[in-house]
Amino acid sequence: MLSKSQISFIKSLHQKKYRKENGIFIIEGIKSIIEFLKSDYQIHSIYYTSKISATLPKVSANINLFEVTEAELQKISTLQTPQHILALVHIPSKKEVDSKALQNAFSLVLDDVQDPGNLGTIIRTADWFGIKTIICSENTVEAYNPKTVQSTMGSLCRVNIIYTSLAPFLKNIKLPIYGALLDGENIYQTNWGNEGLILLGNEGHGIGKELIEQITVPVTIPRFGAAESLNVAVSAAIFCSEISRK
Amino acid sequence: MLSKSQISFIKSLHQKKYRKENGIFIIEGIKSIIEFLKSDYQIHSIYYTSKISATLPKVSANINLFEVTEAELQKISTLQTPQHILALVHIPSKKEVDSKALQNAFSLVLDDVQDPGNLGTIIRTADWFGIKTIICSENTVEAYNPKTVQSTMGSLCRVNIIYTSLAPFLKNIKLPIYGALLDGENIYQTNWGNEGLILLGNEGHGIGKELIEQITVPVTIPRFGAAESLNVAVSAAIFCSEISRK
Repeated sequence: MLSKSQISFIKSLHQKKYRKENGIFIIEGIKSIIEFLKSDYQIHSIYYTSKISATLPKVSANINLFEVTEAELQKISTLQTPQHILALVHIPSKKEVDSKALQNAFSLVLDDVQDPGNLGTIIRTADWFGIKTIICSENTVEAYNPKTVQSTMGSLCRVNIIYTSLAPFLKNIKLPIYGALLDGENIYQTNWGNEGLILLGNEGHGIGKELIEQITVPVTIPRFGAAESLNVAVSAAIFCSEISRK
Repeated sequence: MLSKSQISFIKSLHQKKYRKENGIFIIEGIKSIIEFLKSDYQIHSIYYTSKISATLPKVSANINLFEVTEAELQKISTLQTPQHILALVHIPSKKEVDSKALQNAFSLVLDDVQDPGNLGTIIRTADWFGIKTIICSENTVEAYNPKTVQSTMGSLCRVNIIYTSLAPFLKNIKLPIYGALLDGENIYQTNWGNEGLILLGNEGHGIGKELIEQITVPVTIPRFGAAESLNVAVSAAIFCSEISRK
């Protein structure tokens, strides 16, 4: 049985403030937990119901395991329909951009993406297309937000997410900067080299003015119908696909 | 001022049961409302706050207009942060598939897509790429769900959404059926003609067995990384992009 203080501690982690304060975030579902166990992330503790105990993977001794009731899981879960297992994971220490890791590769750069589901979907898509690094502006939604984590479907543990101030970062980088804009060159005629950054903007306001100046290749997904814009995760996916199809 | 019964009527429309019973759904935000006013949809009534009254478009006399307080709007809105204006719209009568409208065009077919945000994003993406028809299985999430409506960003009024039983529909159709599967031919090498259906499956289970048999061209988005799958709205977007880039 979980103590009141355990429950209130885990519930506090639903909020960004307490995730930051404690350096811990929540993941849910057996698939995600198995993937995180295989990764460099450090698992703090696992809470599971009897429904899942038979399929529980073996874990190292320093991870605390708690069998809980469905009712207890409901209390600590961030989901409306909890998935029988939840884990607490240590937030890795703040990473700096490694310029070498960006060479001979494509990386995504996100300017203030706000919706946690969009960020999660972008991380999942990046992982599918083999993109290893996503650089986010300081105001981009937190990657450890439960909705983000959930929509990455486990991909969060394979993609490097780095938060930094984008203006100085882009100013100093010696790579082509492809920017998703409404008046750029046709994405289907873009010559992609073998490396670069794909810059995508905020859901409502697009890419910030200061950053637009840093774009070396403005790129547009041609519109054949009437929608005013595309969802940012959809744009990111089409860019990832175009880079990969060469 | 809104009466208690008006408030409780509009609030009831947050639920599918009452939308169906009354044949009315909710749209929010000035951009969407302007687009619906220009469309074939029939607006029932509009509720706006003083913040927006200056920019309110002229509407025909048969649409009821109500100026409401922010507090009243908060009560009837489906959003955490209401957007100063909300309208009730009549659900159009059930449409049948028009086989002629599917010729010389590409249309999407969705087998039990469950997430309202995914459906909304697919509708918005289809609208961007000029796809006019989306055919949904009977168990696909409702297009008039507030979360779906919101994520279409107004595109709902330009894309024809038809719910039907997919097995008999696909059996009788004389068009190529491209199915998004994990073991099909490479999407980047697919020869698209000038018409066809793109069949996409449920978030968890993919395309149903009975429907897989109807696929004439199984197609796969190649994986370059490690994610197990792509989000269905992301897959739909990559298909729409590939068809359009010819």
